[in-house]
Amino acid sequence: MTQALRLGIAGLGTVGAGLVRIVQDNADLLSARTGRDIVITAISARDKNRDRGVDLSSYEWVDNTAALAARDDVDVVVELIGGSEGTALDLVSAALTNGKDVVTANKALLAHHGYKLATLAEKNNVALTYEAAVAGGIPIIKGLREGLAANRITAVYGILNGTCNYILTVMRETGRDFDDVLAEAQELGYAETDPTFDVDGIDAGHKLAILGAIAFGVKPNFSDLKMTGIRQINATDIAFATELGYRIKLLGIAKNIDGKKVQVLEPCLVPESSELGAVDFATNAVYVAGDHIGQTLFTGPGAGAGPTASAVMADIVDLARGVKHPVFNIPASQLGSSDWDNLDDTQGLYYLRLNVIDKPGVIADVSAILRDHNISIESLIQRVRDPDQAVPLVMTTHETRHGDMMAAVTEIEKLAAIAEKPCLIRIEDL
Amino acid sequence: MTQALRLGIAGLGTVGAGLVRIVQDNADLLSARTGRDIVITAISARDKNRDRGVDLSSYEWVDNTAALAARDDVDVVVELIGGSEGTALDLVSAALTNGKDVVTANKALLAHHGYKLATLAEKNNVALTYEAAVAGGIPIIKGLREGLAANRITAVYGILNGTCNYILTVMRETGRDFDDVLAEAQELGYAETDPTFDVDGIDAGHKLAILGAIAFGVKPNFSDLKMTGIRQINATDIAFATELGYRIKLLGIAKNIDGKKVQVLEPCLVPESSELGAVDFATNAVYVAGDHIGQTLFTGPGAGAGPTASAVMADIVDLARGVKHPVFNIPASQLGSSDWDNLDDTQGLYYLRLNVIDKPGVIADVSAILRDHNISIESLIQRVRDPDQAVPLVMTTHETRHGDMMAAVTEIEKLAAIAEKPCLIRIEDL
Repeated sequence: MTQALRLGIAGLGTVGAGLVRIVQDNADLLSARTGRDIVITAISARDKNRDRGVDLSSYEWVDNTAALAARDDVDVVVELIGGSEGTALDLVSAALTNGKDVVTANKALLAHHGYKLATLAEKNNVALTYEAAVAGGIPIIKGLREGLAANRITAVYGILNGTCNYILTVMRETGRDFDDVLAEAQELGYAETDPTFDVDGIDAGHKLAILGAIAFGVKPNFSDLKMTGIRQINATDIAFATELGYRIKLLGIAKNIDGKKVQVLEPCLVPESSELGAVDFATNAVYVAGDHIGQTLFTGPGAGAGPTASAVMADIVDLARGVKHPVFNIPASQLGSSDWDNLDDTQGLYYLRLNVIDKPGVIADVSAILRDHNISIESLIQRVRDPDQAVPLVMTTHETRHGDMMAAVTEIEKLAAIAEKPCLIRIEDL
Repeated sequence: MTQALRLGIAGLGTVGAGLVRIVQDNADLLSARTGRDIVITAISARDKNRDRGVDLSSYEWVDNTAALAARDDVDVVVELIGGSEGTALDLVSAALTNGKDVVTANKALLAHHGYKLATLAEKNNVALTYEAAVAGGIPIIKGLREGLAANRITAVYGILNGTCNYILTVMRETGRDFDDVLAEAQELGYAETDPTFDVDGIDAGHKLAILGAIAFGVKPNFSDLKMTGIRQINATDIAFATELGYRIKLLGIAKNIDGKKVQVLEPCLVPESSELGAVDFATNAVYVAGDHIGQTLFTGPGAGAGPTASAVMADIVDLARGVKHPVFNIPASQLGSSDWDNLDDTQGLYYLRLNVIDKPGVIADVSAILRDHNISIESLIQRVRDPDQAVPLVMTTHETRHGDMMAAVTEIEKLAAIAEKPCLIRIEDL
């Protein structure tokens, strides 16, 4: 048998403890599947004394996390600290420089520094893998990089943040508004005390930047990513979406459309009968379209100790088997520009909800602006009548140039009869 | 750049032509992703002159397919002939013996001779891969073997035959009966003239035997597999299933339940709200549960030139990258016994439809038999009343020992009031 693969684990939060549990529970299986033992030699985290529910007594505790990068008894540094800068970045950089393979679950790190780290890994002829960074337990990185390697990818759509999907699902099922459901999710531990990373789309954006890079062979670009979270989605929009046969999902999208390569993260309407429309609560999903495969969907748990650690271990198993891939599927030097095209020249369908003062002539004014921007209305709903009060006016459009849609909304917003900021949501007719 | 990987392709039907198309269309991508060119050197099929819609002029045509196994200009033999015996078996055996890697889409070959061929491959230190053999384009072999390698798999459920799923979907949507929908599917080319392989479950059974082997680390066993196809499913059952909130799906199941490791292929009721329940028409899906991942689902096209060739190419990309795995994920010598446990001692839920002569006392007789076998009824529907005529009597059970259920049905079948063979369907409450 080949000698054991020796892990040094940095970070012993939920995922770190989950990984220790897999190493302990499934040692026999892992050894049969890789032809060698997978062992933990050294561990490091902030608080040595915290009870993590796993026996850590046989691993050497390292106070200075950075030291893991230089240990002779560590083949693979497993970075589970998180955060795009600081200890995580320093550790990963040092480990790669020292010729150690690195496995990480850190989406922020990859989204911000992926290209630099990929270059460093290749220079040192080591692996940098991150199955757990996107969609938790779902083996989507492997799926894209290997399972669908035959294909020119045309589109990736991901439900990449379980907290947002949970909130949107509960809003739909109960009719309650965002703030209310968020507060409950925080109480139940499904959302963080500071929910910004989740509900404003940053976490999903990190993941999208990684998926976009692998799918399209480009440098990951998070800083230019247009992101819209779910704070502005209200119970009215959810109800109208349902009435129209749609679900609202926060989608990370990277696709080739109308000759443009675009990347955007925003809430979208997807048909309730579509596979993505059926993905509820904290479940994540990634839909991939390619030139030969057609379409395929991967769904599963997007977070949690077991699922995330399962993905971390998938990377470790690859390394134990001697399998290494370029970080973003092709050599870093061959990665394309990180520039994505502007959305303006792409065509799309839109849902637009206006809050209008119920006065004669409002619909005529709105319709005229839409007409002047070549926007054709597919359906229009104004059900509530309440003279001189604000009532919702909802419409969906036929295929429309994005730039035209944005310009029309800017103009509509200036009408005196518009009582609040219009809500514009892209419809993805998957 | 490493030297080109040279393919010898045997079989140029739909999938073979699809593979040639990928090699031609995506040569640039494949070369970027693998660091070398992937080229076709030799091809062989039955009819040299058939127009396959792709340009084959630059490849050497080999009349004697078996000769592909011995050519110096072939690194990988790609077997797309099909069938468990004859040319396919001879070619694959010879290629492995000659130290060539083999990629195949042949589920029958693997299901029948998988263990023998795995042993042969390992003896010769070559790869035998078959991503395309199960669920078409869905990268489920890679998902199980690598993406979920951290997990002790507890259950695999697959919708593995697109023809059956198509027929069951159309039956549900139209209320028409099996024979009628099958005839139409044959006319449309969705079903073969001889539909036996599909509708009697043989094709799905081959795939299940392969999935069961990888998931549970055992020798594939097709010959002992208990298979039930979809011929006996009628419009009445579909309607009752819908009324009860279920869909009928032909499921390949390999799972650990009640300490038993069982493998069975049969139509099952799954909740319409479940992810598997939503998989319609020719789409395939594989649901996998593991001890750390929890649950994950892969869906996509289960057949067709592009999707199947995409999966074949995924295997070729692995070989081009120098990645090889044991055939069934662990060395053949370590594969467990091919014996699966008997279903009798497992617990399950059941749907039972009887056609009973509408006479006083029938329900009492049936209920007494069920009671005597410790079977508790969850719901009972007898809606049609037609004295002295046959009417359907439908019930669902609480958790029941399989052996008890079978014994009860055997006894019920003997009652004078039973007008036709009872229809018993397992309920999988996923």
